[in-house]
Amino acid sequence: MRIGIYGYGNLGKGVELAIRQNPDMELFGVFTRRDPASLQLMTEGAKAYAAKDIEQYKDDIDVLIICGGSATDLPVMTPALAKHFNVIDSFDTHADIPAHFARVDEAARAGGKTAAISVGWDPGMFSLNRLYAGCILPDGKDYTFWGKGVSQGHSDAIRRIAGVLDARQYTCPVEAALEAVRSGANPELTTREKHTRLCYVVAEEGADLARIENEIKTMPKYFADYDTTVHFISQEELDRDHKGIPHGGFVIRTGQTGKNGEHKHRIEYSLQLDSNPEFTSSVLVAYARAVYRLNRRGDVGCKTVVDIAPADLSMLSREEILAHML
Amino acid sequence: MRIGIYGYGNLGKGVELAIRQNPDMELFGVFTRRDPASLQLMTEGAKAYAAKDIEQYKDDIDVLIICGGSATDLPVMTPALAKHFNVIDSFDTHADIPAHFARVDEAARAGGKTAAISVGWDPGMFSLNRLYAGCILPDGKDYTFWGKGVSQGHSDAIRRIAGVLDARQYTCPVEAALEAVRSGANPELTTREKHTRLCYVVAEEGADLARIENEIKTMPKYFADYDTTVHFISQEELDRDHKGIPHGGFVIRTGQTGKNGEHKHRIEYSLQLDSNPEFTSSVLVAYARAVYRLNRRGDVGCKTVVDIAPADLSMLSREEILAHML
Repeated sequence: MRIGIYGYGNLGKGVELAIRQNPDMELFGVFTRRDPASLQLMTEGAKAYAAKDIEQYKDDIDVLIICGGSATDLPVMTPALAKHFNVIDSFDTHADIPAHFARVDEAARAGGKTAAISVGWDPGMFSLNRLYAGCILPDGKDYTFWGKGVSQGHSDAIRRIAGVLDARQYTCPVEAALEAVRSGANPELTTREKHTRLCYVVAEEGADLARIENEIKTMPKYFADYDTTVHFISQEELDRDHKGIPHGGFVIRTGQTGKNGEHKHRIEYSLQLDSNPEFTSSVLVAYARAVYRLNRRGDVGCKTVVDIAPADLSMLSREEILAHML
Repeated sequence: MRIGIYGYGNLGKGVELAIRQNPDMELFGVFTRRDPASLQLMTEGAKAYAAKDIEQYKDDIDVLIICGGSATDLPVMTPALAKHFNVIDSFDTHADIPAHFARVDEAARAGGKTAAISVGWDPGMFSLNRLYAGCILPDGKDYTFWGKGVSQGHSDAIRRIAGVLDARQYTCPVEAALEAVRSGANPELTTREKHTRLCYVVAEEGADLARIENEIKTMPKYFADYDTTVHFISQEELDRDHKGIPHGGFVIRTGQTGKNGEHKHRIEYSLQLDSNPEFTSSVLVAYARAVYRLNRRGDVGCKTVVDIAPADLSMLSREEILAHML
């Protein structure tokens, strides 16, 4: 299976590394809007190409993994590329998934290609777990918690405040809320009760720290609805202690069965990730295998993780799965 | 969707209760090898029938859920019934799954029917989670822990000892082993290090308790490889405190990504169940929906949980899933 990577940021680099762990795949090349000569790939034999030339390589690529941002890149890139390639993306603007799906589906069908969108961990593995748990325990309630992990969007929002040089924001689940959910009490939790926000901020020398802290804590949408803690630290400390991009979270469903709901059950799925982009990349690569197989079976159009049978992700044969994985 | 239940023990009763939670299904009836008149169903309008007459009801049942034991019932029942009905079972003898699959597949194909075997939580949801996690983190290691929960097989083994009137055995995961696994240390764990066995035993009056305890603790396969604790209690205490059939467990995979495996990740799936048979029944009922849909699409033959796309389990439409579940 020859894989192309479209976009070479954290996610694209993660895909390149993930391909190494999957011996049935090889990297054909990376497509970039930057100068291809400026890219330093990690894979012997793979080349960087100009994004604009991609259609020349239609016959060289089995699946193209599109590693762009959800805000402006993917809504344009994925439908355009799905006409010519089997594609996969990690589109994560939950509210816009139906519209993105419709555009990608139309393009993929027109080209006889298979696409998968919104592949990663949320949307992605968390979606799957919400769906499975809800089907098994229809009489129940589910909760998703995120963290502890870095939110790039919130970190960026802090960096836009006057006097801020750099910042890192962690989203943290509230332990007491997790425990209340696990107990089966079906609590109604406010935004503030579920997560806290922890900020490490590097301020300009002489900046008004009280003002910055206040601007963070009162920022609508991003922070106003949360209990937020702000720590001012030096750039050296930020670079030393907060360089990683960890993330994770929990999907928990509690429900009941029995004559009168007397038996309580809990299904919990959790992730703890040192590198959010590398984990997302690893999910993308596994689903690239499925996209390839679906297309070879003539199953064209757009898919999401809920449409794809688990066995299609696996390097193992049916016989190996039956003998060892069940 | 009209569901038939074949066998009316704990599992069959659980299926009957689970159908109530799924408004797109109705119970047609229960088939039993006992006298049908002796069965007291909980569902208005549903009838008990003699198992031997089942072929008369081919056209009345969309999916037949076979609720027999894995040792002797299912290896015979599922292939025989798969010729005439869409069927589903919870066959759980892991080593015999390939042979059972082959027999059921042949029968289902001959009859143009769809079957799903080994549906439940292990095999079942745990298998799925082992497969997904292994595909996402190929460079890693996974562990399955069971409990705390009742093992019927071990409870039965204790009851066969002379002088024992009744017994309940709990399988318990060792917390220190769980923590070692979660840490990403990839420990090599012996059987003894992973689980302990906790036994509540009712002995005959005047029985030699030391002998019974020794026979339990040294019993090959069942107890000899574990640290086992035996408590002698009265029948009243057993009935009062140990009547339930709870179970559960953990599937944990830790793995690494990055240039040199520098980023560690953990995927954990866990279940905590008040009633093992009712939870298993709930999984069976969700997969019965998928079996029905696969058959209507002409997808015949035997399946397992890894072959079935998650969306096929859901009562929700594609539009609802895209808008709300991803």
